[in-house]
Amino acid sequence: MATLVLLRHGESEWNAKGLFTGWVDVTLSTAGEEEARRGGRLLLDTGLRPDVVHTSVLTRAIQTANIALGAADLLWLPVSRTWRLNERHYGALQGKDKAQTREEFGDEQFTLWRRSYDVPPPPLPDDDEYSQAGDARYGGLPPELLPRTECLKDVVGRMLPYWYDSIVPDLAAGHTVLVVAHGNSLRALVKHLDGVSDEAIAKLNIPTGIPLRYELDSSFKPVVAGGEYLDPDAAKAAIEAVANQGR
Amino acid sequence: MATLVLLRHGESEWNAKGLFTGWVDVTLSTAGEEEARRGGRLLLDTGLRPDVVHTSVLTRAIQTANIALGAADLLWLPVSRTWRLNERHYGALQGKDKAQTREEFGDEQFTLWRRSYDVPPPPLPDDDEYSQAGDARYGGLPPELLPRTECLKDVVGRMLPYWYDSIVPDLAAGHTVLVVAHGNSLRALVKHLDGVSDEAIAKLNIPTGIPLRYELDSSFKPVVAGGEYLDPDAAKAAIEAVANQGR
Repeated sequence: MATLVLLRHGESEWNAKGLFTGWVDVTLSTAGEEEARRGGRLLLDTGLRPDVVHTSVLTRAIQTANIALGAADLLWLPVSRTWRLNERHYGALQGKDKAQTREEFGDEQFTLWRRSYDVPPPPLPDDDEYSQAGDARYGGLPPELLPRTECLKDVVGRMLPYWYDSIVPDLAAGHTVLVVAHGNSLRALVKHLDGVSDEAIAKLNIPTGIPLRYELDSSFKPVVAGGEYLDPDAAKAAIEAVANQGR
Repeated sequence: MATLVLLRHGESEWNAKGLFTGWVDVTLSTAGEEEARRGGRLLLDTGLRPDVVHTSVLTRAIQTANIALGAADLLWLPVSRTWRLNERHYGALQGKDKAQTREEFGDEQFTLWRRSYDVPPPPLPDDDEYSQAGDARYGGLPPELLPRTECLKDVVGRMLPYWYDSIVPDLAAGHTVLVVAHGNSLRALVKHLDGVSDEAIAKLNIPTGIPLRYELDSSFKPVVAGGEYLDPDAAKAAIEAVANQGR
């Protein structure tokens, strides 16, 4: 039996403005920092002590991990960072206003881009101001690996090798593993863990700043489907708020 | 040729109070946070971009790394943390007031404990409130490895395996390496790099918050002895201030 804890980063500067972010490297808002502190305090108060931490290479997830671990007096934990836990690349939508996009392209297209499993937005040109083509943090990735847009199916595909090669070995070694990441990379992981269908995943939202704990069996599958939030009431309220984004 | 950058953490809550800290896990003061930001801005302004980061497992060094990397927009760099880069364990002096200790034991004994190469203070009992015997972060260390006191020679001895096994391979791979650590673990490393004698090391002080850059040759020895501070004037002033601590 192994324990996995998922934590979605708190509100970023662009969440606050209602912009599609994806791989654009924005920082947490003050509210997002407070959410991260709450997440850390929940770990502390429930006595859930991770042994190792995995994050994306995006600042808002790393800030969330640092603030939460600081609040839990666990800043010293070993941490690994990978682009494979990054948020979904939102393609040509990166930097665009969510409400305006919904208005411009209509409810159906908006929902398709935002929630369909296998329809990515149009690709983002490398010379766009919101492209990551020249970002040093991806300098080690061959061009065919650097996405220009992604659907959730693409995220599952690039996330799973890291799950199998880096996170599962930590779990197999008996470590309690904390993964601090993004709405869509965590939805991709939960889809895999809970065997959520391509259709049902559209309606699954993970709240920000509330640790989600999974006990896993010897096959690294959940003992209780969906896991357990460390603050179930706050999670319920937050899930409803996320579902209403862009409205 | 490889580039190594050393950064000593800024003022901690206990530095501010004039207490011996050692392995006691105190946080940065507000002034220390500002020093860390300055260190990060110096990296940014001089275009010196580390590829990987190594820190101790003590919060004040990790905070310094996080704040400096945040200021340099490099929060995503891979980081390794090790007890081998920890501050010197100050034994029975941990938690004691520096000025009071000087008064109680006299100038000679104070200077011997503080600056001699091979005379450690008396050991700290495991049941002392400032002992790290029960600290989870050292749970993986066999008892014979967990120090109860250290002289600088002991620090050199436990730091060098990490230098050889973890930092040198990064340098050999062509990475620019940033080491964020403590007064005495960095003095131990500088002693090794520059071949400083057991006597001369007593007078060598490393200022806080100012990155110290070494270009290393193919034997991983400095091209220029002593390296170069990114802000030489500030370094000179700070070195004089450190030398006067406890007076």
